[in-house]
Amino acid sequence: MPDKSTLKLGFLGMGVVGQGVWKHIQRHGETLRSRLGVGLELYRAAVRDLSLKRLSDIPPSALTDDPESIVNDPEVDIVCELMGGTDRARELTLTAFRNGKTVVTANKALICDHGTELFEAARENGAHYLFEASVAGGIPVIKALREGLVANRFSHIFGILNGTSNYILTRMEREGLAYEDVLTEARNLGYVEADEALDLDGIDAAHKAAILAYLAHGRWISLDEMVVEGIRDITLHDIQAAHRLGCKIKLLAIISKDFDTNRIRAGVHPMLISTEEVVAGVDEVYNAVSITGDVAGNTVLIGRGAGQDATASAVISDIVDAVTSISNGVLESSLKLEAAFYERLSDGSTIAGLDEIQGSFYLRLSVDDKPGVLARVTEILSNAGISISTVDQASGEGKGVASLILTTHRSTEKAMAGAVADLKDEPSVLENPVLLRIFESID
Amino acid sequence: MPDKSTLKLGFLGMGVVGQGVWKHIQRHGETLRSRLGVGLELYRAAVRDLSLKRLSDIPPSALTDDPESIVNDPEVDIVCELMGGTDRARELTLTAFRNGKTVVTANKALICDHGTELFEAARENGAHYLFEASVAGGIPVIKALREGLVANRFSHIFGILNGTSNYILTRMEREGLAYEDVLTEARNLGYVEADEALDLDGIDAAHKAAILAYLAHGRWISLDEMVVEGIRDITLHDIQAAHRLGCKIKLLAIISKDFDTNRIRAGVHPMLISTEEVVAGVDEVYNAVSITGDVAGNTVLIGRGAGQDATASAVISDIVDAVTSISNGVLESSLKLEAAFYERLSDGSTIAGLDEIQGSFYLRLSVDDKPGVLARVTEILSNAGISISTVDQASGEGKGVASLILTTHRSTEKAMAGAVADLKDEPSVLENPVLLRIFESID
Repeated sequence: MPDKSTLKLGFLGMGVVGQGVWKHIQRHGETLRSRLGVGLELYRAAVRDLSLKRLSDIPPSALTDDPESIVNDPEVDIVCELMGGTDRARELTLTAFRNGKTVVTANKALICDHGTELFEAARENGAHYLFEASVAGGIPVIKALREGLVANRFSHIFGILNGTSNYILTRMEREGLAYEDVLTEARNLGYVEADEALDLDGIDAAHKAAILAYLAHGRWISLDEMVVEGIRDITLHDIQAAHRLGCKIKLLAIISKDFDTNRIRAGVHPMLISTEEVVAGVDEVYNAVSITGDVAGNTVLIGRGAGQDATASAVISDIVDAVTSISNGVLESSLKLEAAFYERLSDGSTIAGLDEIQGSFYLRLSVDDKPGVLARVTEILSNAGISISTVDQASGEGKGVASLILTTHRSTEKAMAGAVADLKDEPSVLENPVLLRIFESID
Repeated sequence: MPDKSTLKLGFLGMGVVGQGVWKHIQRHGETLRSRLGVGLELYRAAVRDLSLKRLSDIPPSALTDDPESIVNDPEVDIVCELMGGTDRARELTLTAFRNGKTVVTANKALICDHGTELFEAARENGAHYLFEASVAGGIPVIKALREGLVANRFSHIFGILNGTSNYILTRMEREGLAYEDVLTEARNLGYVEADEALDLDGIDAAHKAAILAYLAHGRWISLDEMVVEGIRDITLHDIQAAHRLGCKIKLLAIISKDFDTNRIRAGVHPMLISTEEVVAGVDEVYNAVSITGDVAGNTVLIGRGAGQDATASAVISDIVDAVTSISNGVLESSLKLEAAFYERLSDGSTIAGLDEIQGSFYLRLSVDDKPGVLARVTEILSNAGISISTVDQASGEGKGVASLILTTHRSTEKAMAGAVADLKDEPSVLENPVLLRIFESID
């Protein structure tokens, strides 16, 4: 393979991202050739529906509706899996590996659900599996973690990993709009995935958090092992109350590791974060990842987390790395080293239990607007061992209902979950309590 | 060389950064070995004064006061040039290259003054010259530009590249302290380089800007070809006036390229930047680099720009890359490709003249507090073709002196320089005008 003058790309899927990759490789072909010493040929693409309209740059003769013909074609050197989904994509990726092909992907759900199997299959077959585009779109965060910050151990990684929910929260805050109104707008703009739970329930961000956790700590964390909550319960009230506390509300993914106890914590949930934090200033569809290493200190990367071009930029960066390693003939040795590296990283660390995860909380309750209720609520919290930091009571939502906003001192997730269960059972608490977490500065 | 099981590091200089590198390689030795497949030996270090106290990890037997003995030692595989300066460091680096050694450096002044010669010498001798640590300390910005964002052409790069001046501006703004007072404090904290002009006159940031311009556009820009201004003239008045305009003052390096005219603009100067911009929120000693690529869009990287550990993190990342390429035996081929890549990047672009560089300006004048002066000032600006956007006149600084703060609409650097010269000649203008630039959002 090292003596090929052109490497052939086969695409699985030619949707928004695929067409972006095609377009930019066509446009930057000569620059990439001078960078790589070999050319990249836009060879073939498998699509579901041949009749759809696509970029005019893509000749119809390059299209097929048989994806097997891509992964089984001996001419194809690198497979770009941009089709999404986890079943068919998994099978095709495994077939590509069995045929010794390197696969570049943007499919975070697939990696997250089948990472162990897929990376093992890649290694067994001497193939690379590259996934820069799967986390934070155009931001080269995977390269930063693996290479730029290679000297570091990572105690804290956190960030905004889902652009859609960040867009919704930003619009609510800036325009004073209700959640439902902004969601309708985001749907109309095509910002929300077909499976809305991915964006609104924090699942997409959790997939990305799992990938970052693997890169940092060499261990796959399943979504069941994380606290994963989305933004559906957040109201303008919360955003305004956060503002009074000097904070914004952001959907944050957090991966932290205590190197003394060897325990990892990973989670995705909306949090109050001080406006003093750089990440709090990352609005609209932008993503941000803050990485605290024991050598480099704190590094923050901010950029477009999704969209045709940003994701294409990451896919092409992976293609370039793949070509470099293929044309240098060092693929096999670098795979072996990578495996050893992840093995070493995964030092038997375990997942922290809810009784170990500490933090401060924000709690909004709709309660009967009558004497004694605050006393009852504080009693429940006190019984759970939770001490209150601030109280903000606004009566007169009308009809005998008061809104009670509490913040707590540090407590465990477990104690808080118990208190919330008790609050749900309390007759004077009228709706499900809204629980948010408060971000603690890392410095 | 590929069959060596250990590669030997020789250090030139064992000051703050050198000791940081030594310490962290010692601590992370096994992790790095699993990553690299070969071990790193902390072999020898040349220092100026053998009697200085150093980390106890460094055995005195590893030290020498003869740097030639490092670069000429056939045992040394990689030289870490962390001595600073440009004369002796240049000679030693060239000798290292002639002996086929890869050199890792944090020395931005050296690269900036002798980049062409040094990179050529490296290539001629089949050696690598790596310099991640030379720009923005622990932030992996060079790797991001060269690899993570390889699919992009860069229309705009800007950022905060000097931590000391950012610290001074932050303290002035937050504490309401005068420039001289903060400078004294910064000196006491050891934040200011021995040659203070590097930090205070923008020269250090300009060195880094030149390196970023080379990486983005394959062309060395000398400091003579840039507008380089520092922070010495900035007073609390300016910071407060900027605040009233919704801005902060930051020392920004800017590298932009117009791909239609093939003209590059590079400069370093204090600027008013809207507090809405993420980079405006980067305070204290932190650095930030904002990169706008035609594919990835806007990416911002923020982190520690200096200090022992942050710089050591970058040096170690380069060492890891060097070892990977040496132990894979691909050094020569990757050097050839790199040369071809930079050659292609440097597409005959030229430097924009002052008559082409457009922007808006902020101008603070101390003037006679008497009728007709504002009319005289606006006439001078109008004669230079500059139109005024806002005027803020505060009389009563005492003793017949008024402070006049103007902002302008877009104009050229050349027109503004002419107007400033005329204002200096104007008898009712009592001190040298203070000219700042206003940052224009890139979106």
